[in-house]
Order: sequence, then structure tokens, then C-alpha cells
Amino acid sequence: MNALNGIRVLDLTRVLAGPFSAQILSDLGAEVIKIEQPGKGDDARQMGPFQQGESMYYMANNRNKKGITLNLKSKEGKKIFLDLVKESDIVIENYRPGTMEKLELGYDVLKIVNPAIIYGSVSGFGHTGRYSKRPGYDIIAQAMSGIMSTTGWPQTGPTRTGTPLGDVLGGLWCAIGILAAIQAREKTGRGQKVDIALIDAAVATMANITMIYLTEGRLPQLIGNRYESTYPYDSFTCSDGQCVIGVANNKLWAKFCQVICRDELIDTERFRNVPDRVTNYAELKDIVEEWTSKHTREETVQLLLQAGVPAAPIYTIDQVVDDPHIAQDREMFFTQRHPKAGTITLTGSPLKLSDTPVTLDQPAPTLGQHTEEILHHLLGFNAEEIMKLKKQNVI
Amino acid sequence: MNALNGIRVLDLTRVLAGPFSAQILSDLGAEVIKIEQPGKGDDARQMGPFQQGESMYYMANNRNKKGITLNLKSKEGKKIFLDLVKESDIVIENYRPGTMEKLELGYDVLKIVNPAIIYGSVSGFGHTGRYSKRPGYDIIAQAMSGIMSTTGWPQTGPTRTGTPLGDVLGGLWCAIGILAAIQAREKTGRGQKVDIALIDAAVATMANITMIYLTEGRLPQLIGNRYESTYPYDSFTCSDGQCVIGVANNKLWAKFCQVICRDELIDTERFRNVPDRVTNYAELKDIVEEWTSKHTREETVQLLLQAGVPAAPIYTIDQVVDDPHIAQDREMFFTQRHPKAGTITLTGSPLKLSDTPVTLDQPAPTLGQHTEEILHHLLGFNAEEIMKLKKQNVI
Repeated sequence: MNALNGIRVLDLTRVLAGPFSAQILSDLGAEVIKIEQPGKGDDARQMGPFQQGESMYYMANNRNKKGITLNLKSKEGKKIFLDLVKESDIVIENYRPGTMEKLELGYDVLKIVNPAIIYGSVSGFGHTGRYSKRPGYDIIAQAMSGIMSTTGWPQTGPTRTGTPLGDVLGGLWCAIGILAAIQAREKTGRGQKVDIALIDAAVATMANITMIYLTEGRLPQLIGNRYESTYPYDSFTCSDGQCVIGVANNKLWAKFCQVICRDELIDTERFRNVPDRVTNYAELKDIVEEWTSKHTREETVQLLLQAGVPAAPIYTIDQVVDDPHIAQDREMFFTQRHPKAGTITLTGSPLKLSDTPVTLDQPAPTLGQHTEEILHHLLGFNAEEIMKLKKQNVI
Repeated sequence: MNALNGIRVLDLTRVLAGPFSAQILSDLGAEVIKIEQPGKGDDARQMGPFQQGESMYYMANNRNKKGITLNLKSKEGKKIFLDLVKESDIVIENYRPGTMEKLELGYDVLKIVNPAIIYGSVSGFGHTGRYSKRPGYDIIAQAMSGIMSTTGWPQTGPTRTGTPLGDVLGGLWCAIGILAAIQAREKTGRGQKVDIALIDAAVATMANITMIYLTEGRLPQLIGNRYESTYPYDSFTCSDGQCVIGVANNKLWAKFCQVICRDELIDTERFRNVPDRVTNYAELKDIVEEWTSKHTREETVQLLLQAGVPAAPIYTIDQVVDDPHIAQDREMFFTQRHPKAGTITLTGSPLKLSDTPVTLDQPAPTLGQHTEEILHHLLGFNAEEIMKLKKQNVI
């Protein structure tokens, strides 16, 4: 059994933030029906990388979903959608605010058809407020939330995080909002609207950085890989790569000095306490790298871990994929058979639930793969009616 | 009414990932009882910035919680904890794996006392696997997940994201896992263990980047602020600051060329289609900055937005806090009265739920603020017994 068995989701989302959010629900066992435009589908189907002509970008965010096509601009398509809403628990969309209303399928319409429906939306700036109608992309959320202004180096300026972080955070918060709404409905019997903005989602991750400004009026600066609050807590160059070391307190500092055979540093005044080490970080970085540069990254990390000092390699993506703890023990990579792409490797779920584990066995749907099944079983259409809808380009 | 009213959480977490996760539940209306070590409390109470001597770091991650002190190493403390477990729905902790077992308070013990208890854990590497016992900090998750290796510039190397992203992601996934477990329990009546690793949480955010390697065998590189898949989609320098522009497709490219009065570029072969613009991004960056450098950031963004081209300023934290859409319309900053710190400003919640909105009115507890209330009302201790527990350093 999965945690969300018995929950049905209509997934109107495209590209990343929305599909990622709905996929969290499908991994947890919800029946997610992805609704795509006939003939074209989710834009992500055109986005690389491709395997046997099938988009891996799409497959990475739409596993465990069923896929149907439906033209929401047609009268018949709208009617079918509203009939599906009657049979469902959740609708999730990531159109620009106003689009669903223009289709006459906004939350106000859906809740009349099904008062228990939970309506989850992800948009750049949210469904309320003065910037609501602005187009919102991942890079815009990273820029306006302050994340970029605190990521990077003085010599390079504000830096975008390499993963589409704004989209990912929006998707995670939307999943949280929807799950909370499911719980609320257990008591009230009513659905509700969950309105997630990429920009809000990103701002909320900056909380303890933002506190520095809100309390002291001091602007967090670009400081590369070190932390403001302790040192050595930074990246360091080894003979064959880079590692990070996390000496968070005096106890770890003493252990660290012993590992590098520099016991005399433990009580050196310039480095004695955390604030001293933070102040003299540049000198300390040279001392640490004098040691790390004589060892391989693997040796460095192992020597430190054996002494109880937190340390890790800075992995490139191939090293992440090959790491036995990540890939095998924690099952963060797994393979599926896809009818067109063949055997594919995907990233697993970090949700490790002991009683109702996630199930990751169904590949993403081909365009319209389950249209007939859903229309027949859920709404009772027969083969002739389905043929007619196809001819009319409704499905 | 809030979404999680009637749910009681015992929060044993410290510093960031765990407290942030439990705060999501408290914002949603769960009764979260934070359990801290007598006399000392959560380490975050010693972390700056401070207002009137009170840690804002702590207050930013522990609002809406009640706070009690309890010595889990004492026999009496363990007994009280187990009695609280009987009266609760959720336990959440972020100790290093094995610590709760050493206290004889692991999930195996708690589920005997209360089979419906949901046990949420956040740790660096998770409760299973070969690295399970390694110390895990935010920087270690950022390093080993590949996030650092794809963030930054060729000349600076792998770059840490400015916010403690590993902790934040771990906290978000833990909240999702716990909410899913609540839903599962509605059907099974049983609780379960939710085992979230910072490293898994971070790996899961890299999915579409990781696909590039898994499909093409090509390693994602450090490419600064541009994207691999389209251009101009990057940061650009204006006369008084930096902005980002998101020209994601040909339609936006035509609009963009019109705004900068360079219509002839639309059909220039070197820039005609997305792959052409990606290939010739360096030349294009100069062309874009020839225009942006003549305008202020505000002018640049407004001119582009008026033409329907996605654009945004790269905000510093003060600008985020002062933005009227973010701060006022979306209520992402708000004030509270704290008994010791006075009026404080905190970051709001991105969870905008129409029927059961979050409530953010209670400040974080002072150390042991609700010990007597909880012991009396929940477990029936009288004043004399509470006095005795204090003398014995149990509370």
C-alpha cells in the first residue's frame, strides 16, 4: 500500500515546477492523470536530453502518471474536464494566473462542480498581488528572492544555483500545501485553493540569511564557499580535486589540528575560538590547504572522517551517480523500462517511508497513452464516442 | 481553522533542518511541543543574529511552537517523554542516526508505546546505508549531491548556494513525508518512520541536470548564470545594477529585438533559432549589454515587461524585504511581539491556503516557557511534582 492510494489527481502542469510537484503525489501512490494538449503535449516533451527520441526531461518529472489528451479550449473538452473534476480529489496547474479563468475552468467554477476539490497552483508571483500577471521563470525567482545575491564570489557577482532551484522549491511547497489541504478536508469535507508562488517559495528558504539584515541591518555578501559563522568550514583543494570540511566548533577544531599534525594551532590565539578563526580565515585557508594539497581527496576525507571531523568530496554528477551509498543503499538511482525509450535511469525519491514506501515502477506516459482507458472506465464513454472525440480533435 | 489542528507534534530537533520542518507543521496549525535540554536548549539559541540577547536564528525556525525542557538522559525524563508519545501524533528529530536508539527512545521503542506514532527523522546520510553514521552538515549535502559542481563559474570552481540549501531541502522533504504518513494513517491506523537524508533531498533536486549525464554521458559544467538550453537567458549589467532576462523561445526573441530596436537581429542567421543563440551566446551577451548598460535596472526591467519579455532585477536582501509585492501583497514579511526581544520581523510562509490559512501569531518559546503547562494539562502533574522534577534537573 502507498500513502496516497485512493487519491485521484488531474495534472494540467507543464515543464518543471508543476510536473515535479504532481510527481511527488504519484510516487506516494496517488492516481495522477496528466492532461495534455492533443498532438503536442507538455512543452517538456520537446526538451532534451533525448533517448530514442523520447524526452528524458519529461520522463524525469512524469513517472507513475497516466496520460490523456484533452483540448480544454473546445466546448466538449471543457465538459469532459468538469466531469473528471467530479471524480477527482485534486487539480494541479502551473499556468500564468488568469489562464484557467479565461478557459472558464478557474477554482471558482471547479468548486461549484465539486466542493471537495483541492486546487493546487504554482506560478511565478502567485495569484494575488501587483506582480501576479508577470511571467515567472526559475531564473526570475532566483534573482528576486535574494538567493543569487548571496551565492557566488566577489569577483564574479551574483550567481544562479545550477539546478532550477526556483522551480524545485515551488514544486515542493505546492506538494506540502496540497497534502495539508487533504488533511484539512478530512475534517471539513471541503476542498480549497493552494496558491504557491515561485518567488515566495524561494524567499522562504532564505530565512536565516534574511535575519542578518532584518536584525543587524547588515547585507549578506558574496563570500564564496565559506560560512560567516564558523571556520574552517569551506572548500579546500586536494592533490586531485576539491573537498569540503566542516569544523563547526572548538571540539572539532582540536580534532582537526591533531589530524593535520599541527597540535600547536589549537591554542594559538589567532585561531583559539570560533570568532578568531572566522576573522583569520584567509591565513587558516592556506594552512589547511598546505595539508590537503599533499593528499588525494579520498585520503583527506577518510583521514578526517576517521577522526570524527565532518568532510566530503565535492562530487561531479558522474561521481554522485556512482556513489554506492547514494545509488545503491539509498536507492537514489533506479532503472525503468519505457515502451519507446527502452531502459532508462531516473533519480529516485528521498521519501523513505517504512510502512507505505513509494512505488516507482511506472514510466511516464506516451502522449495520450491512457485517453481511452480513462474516458471509458471513469466516464463511461464507448469506443464509438471516443472515435468521434478524436475526429473532432477534442482528445 | 488551520489544516493541522488536532495534530500534536513532539519536536526534538536542533539548529535548522529539523526545526524548519517542524515549523511548517506549526504554521499549518499543529500543536508543536519543542523539547529542549534543561539549562541549555537548542544550539541555535547561541547562534546570531541577536535582538535584545535573543537569537533571531532560533526565532526564525521555531515560531508557533510551545517549548518545554526535558532531560532525556534521566530515567524520569525518558518516562515523561514516553508518556508524551502516548498523547501525540508525531515525533520529529534530527540527531545523528543511532542517538535515539542509544537513549532507548528509537522508533522501535516508541511504536510499542504508541503504534499510531509517526516518527520523522532528518539526518545527513539517512538511517540506512554505509555512510549512515557519518556527520552530515548542510555544506556536505551541497558538496556530495552535485549541486556545488554545477553552481558557479569556470574561473572560481564549484560554488555553495548562499542559503543553507541542504538543510532547507531536507526540512521540506521531511514535512512532505510526515504529511503523507498522516494521510496513510487515516486508512491504516498505523504510524510509520519517515527517514529523510539531506544528501537524498539534495540529489532529488538535480533531476533534470542529472539526466544530461545519465542520457548523454556529458558532465554538466560550471556556466555561470546562463542556461544550457536557451539564450539570452542570463544576468546582464545595467547602468546601476544587474538584472536577469528570460528569452525562452523565438516569439520572445522577436519581442526582445524590438524592445532594443534591433529588429534586424530577429532573422540574422547566427541568432535565428534557439540552438544558434546558445552557440553564439558570448556575442549575444555583448549585444544585450550594449543596450542594458544604457538603462537603469528599473528601466530595463520595465521596458522588457511592458513588451511581455520576462525580466527581473537581481535583488539584494534589503530590496527583497522592501519589495511591495513580496512584503505586503504576498505577506512574506511580518512582525511579532516577543516577550524578551520586543518587536521582531520574520519571513512569512509561502503556503497560501484559501480555506485553512496558516496562522503565524505565536513567537518562538523562551527556554522551558510551557514546561509546567504541558506537564500539568497533558500528563496531570501537580505543582509539587513539577517542583521536584526541577530540583532533580529532569526539566
